[in-house]
Amino acid sequence: MIRIGIAGYGNIGKGVEKAVNAATDMELRAVFTRRGTDTIKLAGRSIPILPIDDAEKMSSEIDVMVLCGSSSSDLHDHGPRFASCFNIVDSFDTHAKIPEYMATVQAAATKTTAIISAGWDPGLFSMVRALSEAVLPDGSNYTFWGEGVSQGHSNAIRSIEGVKMAVQYSVPIQDAIDSVRRGERPDLTARQKHLRKCYVVAEPAADKASIEQKIVTMPDYFADYDTTVTFIGEDEFIANHQKMPHGGLVIRSGKTGSNEQVIEYSLKLDSNPEFTGSIMAAYARAAYKMAADGLFGAKTVLDVPLAYLSDKDRNTLIKELL
Amino acid sequence: MIRIGIAGYGNIGKGVEKAVNAATDMELRAVFTRRGTDTIKLAGRSIPILPIDDAEKMSSEIDVMVLCGSSSSDLHDHGPRFASCFNIVDSFDTHAKIPEYMATVQAAATKTTAIISAGWDPGLFSMVRALSEAVLPDGSNYTFWGEGVSQGHSNAIRSIEGVKMAVQYSVPIQDAIDSVRRGERPDLTARQKHLRKCYVVAEPAADKASIEQKIVTMPDYFADYDTTVTFIGEDEFIANHQKMPHGGLVIRSGKTGSNEQVIEYSLKLDSNPEFTGSIMAAYARAAYKMAADGLFGAKTVLDVPLAYLSDKDRNTLIKELL
Repeated sequence: MIRIGIAGYGNIGKGVEKAVNAATDMELRAVFTRRGTDTIKLAGRSIPILPIDDAEKMSSEIDVMVLCGSSSSDLHDHGPRFASCFNIVDSFDTHAKIPEYMATVQAAATKTTAIISAGWDPGLFSMVRALSEAVLPDGSNYTFWGEGVSQGHSNAIRSIEGVKMAVQYSVPIQDAIDSVRRGERPDLTARQKHLRKCYVVAEPAADKASIEQKIVTMPDYFADYDTTVTFIGEDEFIANHQKMPHGGLVIRSGKTGSNEQVIEYSLKLDSNPEFTGSIMAAYARAAYKMAADGLFGAKTVLDVPLAYLSDKDRNTLIKELL
Repeated sequence: MIRIGIAGYGNIGKGVEKAVNAATDMELRAVFTRRGTDTIKLAGRSIPILPIDDAEKMSSEIDVMVLCGSSSSDLHDHGPRFASCFNIVDSFDTHAKIPEYMATVQAAATKTTAIISAGWDPGLFSMVRALSEAVLPDGSNYTFWGEGVSQGHSNAIRSIEGVKMAVQYSVPIQDAIDSVRRGERPDLTARQKHLRKCYVVAEPAADKASIEQKIVTMPDYFADYDTTVTFIGEDEFIANHQKMPHGGLVIRSGKTGSNEQVIEYSLKLDSNPEFTGSIMAAYARAAYKMAADGLFGAKTVLDVPLAYLSDKDRNTLIKELL
């Protein structure tokens, strides 16, 4: 059994827990948290809940530590710190900072295998982008996200005065998808690719017109998009906007000679954090096997042969799935 | 420059030629054929056309030999023979015989890297099946092929007396696809997954009713499917049925806890052999790099890290595509 630890028990940590408990070749050994250990209520069977600062003491008890802290606040610390004494997997998702983050993990992972950015984007979508580009070099990649909840954009709305609750859905624009599927290789602005739909519960005394204006003009987050703001009641918010669906598409259209070729990959997810947790669990298995083969250092999904992800041996995999 | 040889100059060989000539890091050194070398007319720039029996003499001139012979008649010989002195790539596609074929290649590839079955199915579709199963273990894989030409089925029709020309299109059944996309995980018979549409040019004196009857009742090929047979004139056949489009879908629907998750991968190909040739060219690059790293033996697409497929260095790939 591959012994798994989870560092950080938010939504993704709970997703990893569910995936590990469902696997037949992995067992969850401990959950590490920086919150009070008595505030954590596990979804699955009872295992030790320990302060994250004591994690290193467990290095002989855990084969792979799955890092479920936030990319913006936790992983810059957790990545190199845990990679120095555990095999790790994370889903570090600040695309622009991956090379810098990877370098710090690489420096620490001299005797461990550290697979970073193993979610669905970065992660599965990156694999499709890289594979598609290699196979169809004369072509263009397009990535669409949604329809789904963007936590970053939801948080940005919540930071506005007078907002009690808020959620933001990114919605890909069908005309853009259709053009890409037809192989037209359009140049698309941010506005032409995605809509932003916001549902907001305002404080009773709040100025709704002002909130809406602050949202739609917010730089980086909303100003470059067509954004709709719908004010709803708290009951409706709780009834209809508590789920975390997501998904998206990667399409590459290209040519070989004069022939059009189109590759498309899509995800339709009822639970984004559970799907991300399932990916991380599969990469935890890969980290364990790669470490056993002495393949140490910082790795990405582009470095891991797919056979490492499966609980089946290679011959079975080749026979059943090739 | 990675020096490429092509063994077998049919439709796939021509597809490889086009892909290699379009790549900036590969050059085509020679085409090997068992036909008379003066009967071959290259699509691209002039390079030596040599008898396939002389291939071994070129082992110091060629980094990767791309095997484009037929899986049923050529590769059982070519695979182990060429793997003993060249890095090779092939698209061996007789699914049931892959383990046996792989063992013969493995025995020969003691100092070479031999990537087998690197097309789109087996190949890209296998990768998606394996990745999806690892990430969503509680789920089911479905593969649909088409709409596209099946050479095997077309040949089967052509073997019937009185048939002058024939082509068979495999067509996935939309109701089945829709059910899979809804996460219903249906049990589907062969008949429920694909239709078979046949276009036949009959000899002038032929008994069309008898030909149709022979097609629709043919065991293995047609008897288990809903098959339509349309007789057309030779002019229409030449005008409308000479292309080789293909494609298909791999869908995995599964659950994490009580949440539905659906992964879908699809290809829409105007030219099946050119797309297959492009895949093989990318895996030729991978074979070259893996051999340079001493990773010898028989490999499949499940064994090759995606970073090996690209002409970009790993850091660029991570920065641009992760």
